Amino acid sequence: MSHKQSIQRLLDKAQITINGTQPGDIQVHNEQLYGRVLAEGSLGLGESYMDGWWDSIQLDEFFAKVHTVQLDKDIVDKRLIVNAVKARVFNMQNKRLSKRVAQEHYNLDNDFYEKMLDPHMQYTCAYWKGVQTLEEAQEQKLELICRKLQLRKGDRILELGCGWGGFAQYAASKYGCSVVAHNISSEQVAFARRWCAGLPVEVVQGDYREATGEFDKVAAIGLTEHVGYKNYRTLMETAHSRLKPHGLFLLHTIANNASVTTSDPWFDKYIFPGGMLPSVAQLGAAMDGLLVMEDWHNFGPDYDKTLVAWKNNVDKHRDEFKSKFDERFHRMWRYYLLSLAGAFRARKIHLWQIVMSKQGVLGGYESVR
Amino acid sequence: MSHKQSIQRLLDKAQITINGTQPGDIQVHNEQLYGRVLAEGSLGLGESYMDGWWDSIQLDEFFAKVHTVQLDKDIVDKRLIVNAVKARVFNMQNKRLSKRVAQEHYNLDNDFYEKMLDPHMQYTCAYWKGVQTLEEAQEQKLELICRKLQLRKGDRILELGCGWGGFAQYAASKYGCSVVAHNISSEQVAFARRWCAGLPVEVVQGDYREATGEFDKVAAIGLTEHVGYKNYRTLMETAHSRLKPHGLFLLHTIANNASVTTSDPWFDKYIFPGGMLPSVAQLGAAMDGLLVMEDWHNFGPDYDKTLVAWKNNVDKHRDEFKSKFDERFHRMWRYYLLSLAGAFRARKIHLWQIVMSKQGVLGGYESVR
Repeated sequence: MSHKQSIQRLLDKAQITINGTQPGDIQVHNEQLYGRVLAEGSLGLGESYMDGWWDSIQLDEFFAKVHTVQLDKDIVDKRLIVNAVKARVFNMQNKRLSKRVAQEHYNLDNDFYEKMLDPHMQYTCAYWKGVQTLEEAQEQKLELICRKLQLRKGDRILELGCGWGGFAQYAASKYGCSVVAHNISSEQVAFARRWCAGLPVEVVQGDYREATGEFDKVAAIGLTEHVGYKNYRTLMETAHSRLKPHGLFLLHTIANNASVTTSDPWFDKYIFPGGMLPSVAQLGAAMDGLLVMEDWHNFGPDYDKTLVAWKNNVDKHRDEFKSKFDERFHRMWRYYLLSLAGAFRARKIHLWQIVMSKQGVLGGYESVR
Repeated sequence: MSHKQSIQRLLDKAQITINGTQPGDIQVHNEQLYGRVLAEGSLGLGESYMDGWWDSIQLDEFFAKVHTVQLDKDIVDKRLIVNAVKARVFNMQNKRLSKRVAQEHYNLDNDFYEKMLDPHMQYTCAYWKGVQTLEEAQEQKLELICRKLQLRKGDRILELGCGWGGFAQYAASKYGCSVVAHNISSEQVAFARRWCAGLPVEVVQGDYREATGEFDKVAAIGLTEHVGYKNYRTLMETAHSRLKPHGLFLLHTIANNASVTTSDPWFDKYIFPGGMLPSVAQLGAAMDGLLVMEDWHNFGPDYDKTLVAWKNNVDKHRDEFKSKFDERFHRMWRYYLLSLAGAFRARKIHLWQIVMSKQGVLGGYESVR
């Protein structure tokens, strides 16, 4: 059987046709694609897309179909094995190695992110319940977090990983809270400090493990994806030790249906070095006997919508970034956003908000949706 | 330091006074209590209560105070170690040993349970949101489960552990579903068959592991507390293998804040032989890569109210059961209900409803509260 036949047989399972015309079908421009994917797995699939060897009428739908029938499991990924060995032997997200994602991803270009994101500069899943635009959905997500954390005027909040400061700015200006936020990306820290000037927000350029002080609330919004499976317990311990006795901790993260100890090779190389998605089992072990699990909310399909909205914004502003980013970058970025969207659509990965308390909320914690 | 002084020192931490007059204070009728508790831990505390050696103005509040300061950790419990070794070496909840709890607890006396419980014969946590009576709260719990399972006319439901058939009766009569229910208690099975006569409900006297067939929905309401940590994965596999591709599984269970592999010695001996409460980590490992976690609801404080309502019913009907059950049984039962109520009040233990799907609900699962 030729390489093309092998690939076609796999794609048949997902009802994807080579050079077909349906959403999710692919157009192959270079016949070497088949051998490259068989040899290099997910890394080869992504790199050959960046190289322009293939396209899809609807790339997100291609990935939704692939994940629905778990096609990714059919191709053994050698690079994944290399990553697995590295992850077991080393702590790939220790304080030194953690900085890679800041340097390579978050420091990329604030202007570019401003065009891709909403006015609150939210680079995590929006909450689309009953609303239509990215801006509304991101503001609603911020509101959801504030209500879940039961924010009150004067609350001291510790934020672990704060992006460009959107949540800190919102909690301080709308709820009258003071915020200490930790972030290792110099570009984001500089942006957040400018944005939050005049508000009771302190932005610390430092690792989440270095947080000190005592707080009413702790939030980790989009941090957990970067800490690595060896450090989930450390993250929980950090939140626990910083919380006052009756404090609450909200953890917002992309998540995996099964426990893994590796990153996807393509994402690890091009998008999020050291990134890794936690499972229920892994976060459960990390909070075991330490924090009380009060509420666990899964709204993964909202990330599908969010990613598609970001992709539309990038397309809209593409010409403005022509001189900064070449065609290969643009294809890489589209592949990143739409392959993730497809994985959320297929429910292979999820978005969780978990509310935990230090001692258990007396009388019970009321879920907010 | 005398035994009494040792105990008083421990109780001081929880602000409990020997022979005091505040809720949670204790009255000691036999001074040998102190030595017995130090030697025998939780088993000695419970048995000495059954023997009438001590009382409390409010036994549930005594336990809430004890658990709030984690006093139970201060007394090393030898019996617990014996149970731990037994649990590691044997599967204490294999099909043969599982029958103990049916014979000793659930077969006890249907008349007695009818007086203690509500008209739906619900022997699990009620849902008190916005309602005042046990009957309303139990009906609301049934409704909550039906709505979370998105029951539709014609749905085939598998129930693993069905008590006296209250949920099966409700789902069949109110929602037009057909139910196959598994239970190992002969008394409960006989009761459920009479109750559900004329409805599309089949009550199987058999272990949950023996379930066959294909179903739209699976429910395990108050079963998990009996299956033991070695069998959590088997429970998830049973639900997974019985579900149709787009099926939902609702698991309703009492739960623990930390992973354990043993039972409390007093509860194991007198109330639930082989009983054990799962943690997030344990259930997470059991569902890993198998089922999609769609929603996780913690309403433990509602069990505090439920247990107190049961205790009030037992007190109200006490004279009717004088010839059947002696004073020692009555004290044992009160100790069972109120010590659990206190543990829920202190948020040491929890009540979880987890909704899982076989493949992930496309477009997302909407939480119901």
